[in-house]
Amino acid sequence: MKIGIVGCAGRMGRMLVVETAKTKGCDIGGGTDVPGGSFVGKDIALIAGLEECGIAIGDDPKALFGEVDAVIDFTTPTATMKHAALAAETGTVLVIGTTGLSADQKAELKQAAQKTAIVFAPNMSVGVNLAFALVEKVAAILDKETADIEIVEMHHKHKVDAPSGTALGLGEAAARGRGVALDDVAVRSRDGHTGAREDGAIGFATLRGGDVVGEHTVIFACDGERIEITHKASSREVFAKGAVRAAKWAFGKDAGLYSMQDILGL
Amino acid sequence: MKIGIVGCAGRMGRMLVVETAKTKGCDIGGGTDVPGGSFVGKDIALIAGLEECGIAIGDDPKALFGEVDAVIDFTTPTATMKHAALAAETGTVLVIGTTGLSADQKAELKQAAQKTAIVFAPNMSVGVNLAFALVEKVAAILDKETADIEIVEMHHKHKVDAPSGTALGLGEAAARGRGVALDDVAVRSRDGHTGAREDGAIGFATLRGGDVVGEHTVIFACDGERIEITHKASSREVFAKGAVRAAKWAFGKDAGLYSMQDILGL
Amino acid sequence: MKIGIVGCAGRMGRMLVVETAKTKGCDIGGGTDVPGGSFVGKDIALIAGLEECGIAIGDDPKALFGEVDAVIDFTTPTATMKHAALAAETGTVLVIGTTGLSADQKAELKQAAQKTAIVFAPNMSVGVNLAFALVEKVAAILDKETADIEIVEMHHKHKVDAPSGTALGLGEAAARGRGVALDDVAVRSRDGHTGAREDGAIGFATLRGGDVVGEHTVIFACDGERIEITHKASSREVFAKGAVRAAKWAFGKDAGLYSMQDILGL
Amino acid sequence: MKIGIVGCAGRMGRMLVVETAKTKGCDIGGGTDVPGGSFVGKDIALIAGLEECGIAIGDDPKALFGEVDAVIDFTTPTATMKHAALAAETGTVLVIGTTGLSADQKAELKQAAQKTAIVFAPNMSVGVNLAFALVEKVAAILDKETADIEIVEMHHKHKVDAPSGTALGLGEAAARGRGVALDDVAVRSRDGHTGAREDGAIGFATLRGGDVVGEHTVIFACDGERIEITHKASSREVFAKGAVRAAKWAFGKDAGLYSMQDILGL
Repeated sequence: MKIGIVGCAGRMGRMLVVETAKTKGCDIGGGTDVPGGSFVGKDIALIAGLEECGIAIGDDPKALFGEVDAVIDFTTPTATMKHAALAAETGTVLVIGTTGLSADQKAELKQAAQKTAIVFAPNMSVGVNLAFALVEKVAAILDKETADIEIVEMHHKHKVDAPSGTALGLGEAAARGRGVALDDVAVRSRDGHTGAREDGAIGFATLRGGDVVGEHTVIFACDGERIEITHKASSREVFAKGAVRAAKWAFGKDAGLYSMQDILGL
Repeated sequence: MKIGIVGCAGRMGRMLVVETAKTKGCDIGGGTDVPGGSFVGKDIALIAGLEECGIAIGDDPKALFGEVDAVIDFTTPTATMKHAALAAETGTVLVIGTTGLSADQKAELKQAAQKTAIVFAPNMSVGVNLAFALVEKVAAILDKETADIEIVEMHHKHKVDAPSGTALGLGEAAARGRGVALDDVAVRSRDGHTGAREDGAIGFATLRGGDVVGEHTVIFACDGERIEITHKASSREVFAKGAVRAAKWAFGKDAGLYSMQDILGL
Repeated sequence: MKIGIVGCAGRMGRMLVVETAKTKGCDIGGGTDVPGGSFVGKDIALIAGLEECGIAIGDDPKALFGEVDAVIDFTTPTATMKHAALAAETGTVLVIGTTGLSADQKAELKQAAQKTAIVFAPNMSVGVNLAFALVEKVAAILDKETADIEIVEMHHKHKVDAPSGTALGLGEAAARGRGVALDDVAVRSRDGHTGAREDGAIGFATLRGGDVVGEHTVIFACDGERIEITHKASSREVFAKGAVRAAKWAFGKDAGLYSMQDILGL
Repeated sequence: MKIGIVGCAGRMGRMLVVETAKTKGCDIGGGTDVPGGSFVGKDIALIAGLEECGIAIGDDPKALFGEVDAVIDFTTPTATMKHAALAAETGTVLVIGTTGLSADQKAELKQAAQKTAIVFAPNMSVGVNLAFALVEKVAAILDKETADIEIVEMHHKHKVDAPSGTALGLGEAAARGRGVALDDVAVRSRDGHTGAREDGAIGFATLRGGDVVGEHTVIFACDGERIEITHKASSREVFAKGAVRAAKWAFGKDAGLYSMQDILGL
C-alpha cells in the first residue's frame, strides 16, 4: 500500500514520512511541499532523517492523489478542503488530522466522503482514544457510591485554556459510563472552603508548566484503593502513528466518514 | 438483606462490620467471636468504632447462619470448612476470603456449593480484578509491535517474594490478551548488559520498602505515548468492600461456586 | 504527662487517642466531642478500638484544659481559636494540626502563644517538613525563567478546604526560596480561558476522593525536563505520632509559637 | 570554537549537531559514523534535519580529533576509550555522555585526563545534577532505620545497560549521604524468594519501553509516609544542551577530569 504525505517537509509531515516508512505493509508513495518551497526536489526520506529512497518531493497534490492509495493530511483547513475534493475525484483514501475546520467545511467533508473513505479525527492518538474507552468502562462498573472520579492534566506553559479538550473528553467518557451529563456533575476547580466532596462529582485539576506535551490521569478513588488510567504524550509522533494506522484500516473500506473509534474498534 | 460476620472482633471482622453498615441495602445481622472470646456479648457496632446497634456478638455460628441472608468469612481454613457446611445446610449465601485452603478443602467447597451460592476469591479487591480485565483488553488492542508492556510493583519491606502474585497475575492478563504464555515472554529482572529490549517481552520491576500495602502499574509504552493502568491499595478495607459487594450479588442467585470475575461481570 | 484530645471521636481524634495510649510517658487525660454529640459519655478508649479505660468523653473543653498538661487539636479554625484562648488562660500546652486558619486567626495564635507553649504546624510529619526544606532549596536554584512551579495535592473526600494547608506550606517554601510573597504569585485554580502561564507563578491543583490520607507533589517544570518532590502519607498515624512528639517536646518549654522545624531540629 | 560529534548519525548525534549549530560561539567541525556506515559521505547537517552545510560525515575519529577543538561523545564504552586516547594524544577537549563504563575504563579515563580536559557525566542535565544533591541530603537526614531507599528508572527500548548510569549515580549520591559504599548495599534486581528487605539496602528497578528519554525516581519509604525525588527528561535536547555547555566551559581549561557539578557550580 502506497501512502502519500501532503505537506511532507513540515514538522508533522516528516514524522508522517518516518512513520509510514517503518510501518509494515506501507510504502512512501510520494509527498508534496508548497510550490516554490525549498524542499521541492529533495529526497523525501533523506530530509526526514532516513536513508535516501529515490522519491523527490513534488508540488502538485493532484499528481500525488493519482499515484498513491491513501493520502495523509495535517495541513490547513483551506488546503484540506482541496485535498478532500481530489480524494473524492480519484477515490483515494484520505486521513485528516487538520484542526480548526469550520462547520461548513465539516459538512463539505461529509459530501466528499460519499465517494471515498475519509478518516477525520480531532485527536489521532491511539492511546487517548483507548483511554476514552477504558474510562467509560470503569465508570460504568464503579458507581458513584463506590468511586470518586478525578481528572488531572498537565500541559506546557503556552496553553491558554483549562481544562484541556482531552481532559473534558475523558470527563465526558466517565459521565457517559455513569449515564449522567458532564455539565451536571463537573467540578472544574476548587479553592477556599469547598465543603466535602459530593458523591457523583467529576473533578478536574489543571497543571501548566515547561514544555509538557500532554499528560492526563483519571483517578477512580475508592475507600482503600485507587485505580488510575494515565495517558502521557511525549511527542506529536503519536498523531502520525494514529494516522498511518487509520490509512491502513481505511484502505479497501467503503466510502464513508470514519472516526478513530471506528479504526480502533472501541 | 442481613449479613452476618464470623470472626467479627478481629481486625478484618471489624472492617467487614463497618463496610456492611455503610452499604445501602445491607444490615448487620449479627456476628460471632470464638467461644470465651473477650468481645462476646459486646455491641458488634460499638467495638468496630460505630454507634451502638443493639446486637451483641455471639459465639455460635450455627445460630448466626439461621438468622441472616449471607455470611462473610475471613477466618481460617478449618473454621471456613465448618461454615461452608452450615451454609449448605441452611441455604445461606457464603462469601469466603480465607486464604491457605488446601486442594481437598477447595474440593469440599465445590460440594457445599451444590446447595447454596458460595463466592470464593483469592483476592476480593474490586480494583485488582478490574485491573486484570483492563490490562487484558489493552494488551489485545496494542500489539507487540506497538506497545512494550512493563509491570512495576511496590510492597512493604517484609514481603519475601518477587514479583508479587498480583504483578504476575497482571502479567498473565497481559499475556492472555496477546495470546502468548507469560513464561515465554517474561523478563523478571534486568541487570548489567541486557541488550536492547525484545519486542513482545513483558518486563517486571520490583520495589520494596516501608509499609506500602501494595501498588502495581502496568505500562504500555509506545513511541510517543504511554498508557498506564495503576492500582494502589491503601488498606485491607478493599477486601471488605469486595466481600460485601459479593454478598449482595450472590443473594438470590442459584447454588454454585462463584469468583470475583462473575460478580464484577468482567 | 496527661494529654487531652479535643474532637476525640473523629477519625483523627481516635488515632490521637491510640497514639497517646501507646507512647511511653504519656497518658490519656480526657477528650471532648461537640455538645450533644452521640459519643459524649462513651468510653474514650473503647470507641478508639482499645479496651475500656474508664474515662468518659466530655463536651466541655474548658474543663478539659483544667485537667491535662497538653491538648492536641485537629478540629476546625473556629474551634481552634477558642482552644487557643483556653490554653493561654490555663497555661496548658497546645498542639495544633488544624488547617485553613485565616491570617487574622494566625495573628491571634501569636497572641495566645505569649502565655503558653503552642505548636502550630499545617502538617506534623517528618517527611513533609523535610519536603518544605527541599522545595525552598530547589526554588532558590531554579529561577523563574528556568522553572515553572506547580503544586498538586490529593486528599480524602471529606476534606472541606482547598488547597490543603500543607500545599500552601509548600507554596510558601517555594516563594521563600524565590524571595517573593506567595500571595503575589499564587494561582489557586484555573478554569476557562486562562491565557498563557505567567513566569514566576506558583500554581495549585486540588484533587479530592476516596480515603486518601494526603499526597503532595511540587513540580519544577523546565524546558525538556522536570524535577518533582513528592510526599505521600499513607496513614494518619504519621500526623498523630508527630503531634504526640510535639506535645512531649513542648511540655515544660517557655511560652512561644513553635513549628515542627523546631521540634525536628531541621 | 569547532565541535566534532562522534556517532553523529545516531539519535543523540543528530541532536548534538542541531544543538551545536544553534549555540552562539560554536560551529560544527565534523562528525563520524562507523566505517561502512550508510551515512558516511552524507552532509552532516542535512541528515540532522537542517539545511546542508557542506561537511561530509567521515569514518575516521583520528582525523576528526585533529581538526576540531572539542569532541562530544555519546557512543559505547569501547569506542569512548579509543576516543579518550585520541583526545589525550591531540590535546582536544572531550565531553563524554556514554554510560556503562567499567571501573577499569573509568580509571583509564583518569589517565587520559592528565593530558587534556575531559568532562565525564552519566547525565548532562541540570535537573539530574540537582537531584544528585537533593538525594544525598535526604539520605543523610533519614537514616537506615527510618527510610528504605529504592531507585526506579525507565528508558527507551533501545537502551542496552541496566540500571542506567544516572540511576547508579543517584545510588552513589544516596550512599554518600549515608556514609557507605554503594557496592556494599546495592540490590540491583529482585526475583524469586528474596527474603525480607535488609535495612540499609539501596534497591534498583529497571523499566524499558517505547521511546522514553529517561525518568528516575528515588523513593525514601518510611512507616506511614514516603518522600520521592523524581527527574523526568522529555527531550534529549537537555543532554545535548548540557554537553555543548560543557564543551564551551572546558575549552581552554587545564587538563583534568571534570563533572557536571563543576560546570554548573552546584
